[in-house]
Amino acid sequence: MKKLLIQLDTDPLPSTFDRVVASDAGADEIFAYGGVTPQAVTALVHGAIFTRKASELHNTAVFVGGSEVEAGEAIYRAVRKAFFGPLRVSVMMDSNGSNTTAAAAVVSAAKHLDLSQITATVLGGTGPVGSRAAQLLASLGARVNVVSRSEEKAKAVCERLGKEVDASLLTPVGATTTEAYLESARDSKLLVSAGAAGVEMLPAEGLFSLKSLSVAIDVNAVPPLGLGGIEVMDKGKDRGGVICYGAIGVGGTKMKIHHACLRKLFEANTHEFDTQAIFAVARES
Amino acid sequence: MKKLLIQLDTDPLPSTFDRVVASDAGADEIFAYGGVTPQAVTALVHGAIFTRKASELHNTAVFVGGSEVEAGEAIYRAVRKAFFGPLRVSVMMDSNGSNTTAAAAVVSAAKHLDLSQITATVLGGTGPVGSRAAQLLASLGARVNVVSRSEEKAKAVCERLGKEVDASLLTPVGATTTEAYLESARDSKLLVSAGAAGVEMLPAEGLFSLKSLSVAIDVNAVPPLGLGGIEVMDKGKDRGGVICYGAIGVGGTKMKIHHACLRKLFEANTHEFDTQAIFAVARES
Amino acid sequence: MKKLLIQLDTDPLPSTFDRVVASDAGADEIFAYGGVTPQAVTALVHGAIFTRKASELHNTAVFVGGSEVEAGEAIYRAVRKAFFGPLRVSVMMDSNGSNTTAAAAVVSAAKHLDLSQITATVLGGTGPVGSRAAQLLASLGARVNVVSRSEEKAKAVCERLGKEVDASLLTPVGATTTEAYLESARDSKLLVSAGAAGVEMLPAEGLFSLKSLSVAIDVNAVPPLGLGGIEVMDKGKDRGGVICYGAIGVGGTKMKIHHACLRKLFEANTHEFDTQAIFAVARES
Repeated sequence: MKKLLIQLDTDPLPSTFDRVVASDAGADEIFAYGGVTPQAVTALVHGAIFTRKASELHNTAVFVGGSEVEAGEAIYRAVRKAFFGPLRVSVMMDSNGSNTTAAAAVVSAAKHLDLSQITATVLGGTGPVGSRAAQLLASLGARVNVVSRSEEKAKAVCERLGKEVDASLLTPVGATTTEAYLESARDSKLLVSAGAAGVEMLPAEGLFSLKSLSVAIDVNAVPPLGLGGIEVMDKGKDRGGVICYGAIGVGGTKMKIHHACLRKLFEANTHEFDTQAIFAVARES
Repeated sequence: MKKLLIQLDTDPLPSTFDRVVASDAGADEIFAYGGVTPQAVTALVHGAIFTRKASELHNTAVFVGGSEVEAGEAIYRAVRKAFFGPLRVSVMMDSNGSNTTAAAAVVSAAKHLDLSQITATVLGGTGPVGSRAAQLLASLGARVNVVSRSEEKAKAVCERLGKEVDASLLTPVGATTTEAYLESARDSKLLVSAGAAGVEMLPAEGLFSLKSLSVAIDVNAVPPLGLGGIEVMDKGKDRGGVICYGAIGVGGTKMKIHHACLRKLFEANTHEFDTQAIFAVARES
Repeated sequence: MKKLLIQLDTDPLPSTFDRVVASDAGADEIFAYGGVTPQAVTALVHGAIFTRKASELHNTAVFVGGSEVEAGEAIYRAVRKAFFGPLRVSVMMDSNGSNTTAAAAVVSAAKHLDLSQITATVLGGTGPVGSRAAQLLASLGARVNVVSRSEEKAKAVCERLGKEVDASLLTPVGATTTEAYLESARDSKLLVSAGAAGVEMLPAEGLFSLKSLSVAIDVNAVPPLGLGGIEVMDKGKDRGGVICYGAIGVGGTKMKIHHACLRKLFEANTHEFDTQAIFAVARES
């Protein structure tokens, strides 16, 4: 029986990236849909769950993607709402690669640090990858400074994440200057930079002035990179005592996690791969 | 040579239901198109008939679907008009599952009744499934009461169907109350309920008060069901002397018919699977 | 590893023609996109080049098609602009079949004529197929009369083509009457008719009055054909001393070229199949 992946993408043209990875991870056919709205989801999911026997439903799965993460979250909710008790298929949500990238960043950090014992700072902590990295770090027991240009946004994200993880571990920080970024990270052993593509968050001299820093991770692949002094290919590279990861270094791990999740989608019909579940797969693989 | 199914769907996002069934029935690749209009059909069909040798054209087929049955009928006409004599491919029309569902209902009834000898009543007889069930029943010699809330619509449907089958067998009935529904079915051995989803046409006490009734079939899967006292999983279940079929009971047969038609599409390049031809496949399988 | 073809089509519904041919030529999966704009191309190409190892990128390729040739050219430019040095995939541009059809016409003529020694006339010489046939003929050393109803257009096309081939070989001709068409072709050994579908450019008596004519090729498949006296199935048919090719005669060769190019797309990740490169493939095969 063919492994069918139904790709629900919120962009008008469904991602080739997600489609190629799905094909390489073993999906026999990908039914790719672009411009998917929550209204359209029920019929698309019913077609997935009412066409094969319950015992065969692990051969059908749903992938939610697209460049807009909030739109993807609405689709992900609609997908699960359309299930009928045991009539369900496994589903993965990874709009803009946010969940697999955050998982890759945190898995990379965990190679070098006991995350339950540290303070971490996430620059761009309210964005798709940053907020998910903050969530995962706190779920492991790290204290996390969630840094955003808007303190309001930082507070809102901490409040939201506080429903998933220990809220006392999360500290919202509003910061707009290099000095304020450095101040936010002063006691951190881990710094994750997940700001907008092509924006430098910290220059090299600032980064390497942080005395307590052990690991620095930048997920921005578009020059200028988010953290000066780090290179895009860095993957555990020691730079003056700081272990560095660049976007492509993290990206290789992200790709492995993405593949592993897709393969697992077809092992049962009950998987719901969101931020935490994708991270659980990442830690195993 | 790969078996290619070109799925022409009138909804913006082509049906996953039809796509999964096509894949499971043996189509190697499905070219799924949404938002198909009659204007777009000619080029799509020419690409199907001008790309392979005439002797290979049984490996390409067209499936017309979508939730709007009349829109699908316009596509089905446009597809056949785009053929060039022997340069044609097989085509199946099953918008909203109307043809396979009607065939499944009538095949189910035929297991218990000699349809050429009976009177049948079809509630919701002007809808996609109801009108097709009426057509099939009359084609087998049954007298059929075609019941609709609008007598005008019932007359129009009988007039249209009268071009395909013996018009004298069809009686249009306008009815809006339980009493009128019961009156329409008073002498019927078969009752088919094909009204709107989630609308009860007859309560259980009404249904089981019908003295002449032998078989009752309800194709509505959304509670409340169309016929009170029938359950959605019923498949030939005897309830107080009436053989009952619910939507999922009929649905299993519908699925077999759908599969059988898809497999046959690729056996020749000349099949035109509309209401009657799909029923012919249903009777064989 | 699966051979993936990303079909970027500028029409709302991507061509079934190109899709069937791609499947038959060995693409394992076709990711078909309709309504593609230059703005959407970068993300689609990045998904193609950033998902597999550099050494595996010959298993992914891009095909640009659609009925609008200029729109396809814009997509083709955008695709190549989105590559990152060695991170690229092979790409073929054949909107409206223009490149493969022009190549087929010129390859057909070359079977009978030393094209470096002759004068050729192309009716409809400013259209998608005509302008490409003119380019290919001049690239082989033929003198070419580029005939259009608008002399301005003919001049503009010659100027544009003069950047690709020896400009001195191209003569723009404005002509709107049978007499003017005949005058343009008076000294030509080769006549290619590539005008609008369903428009007769020359009647039979005019065509066969041309004393110097050796080969006549008509790529219009819709009656009335472009050249009177030629039949659509003609493939090297001698008619009163003139070797004739009709649209289906040329079309068989076009199909072979189309198949050969698609197969070659997957042999390396560096192919850029435009007019000249497609013709080079045509001459080999």
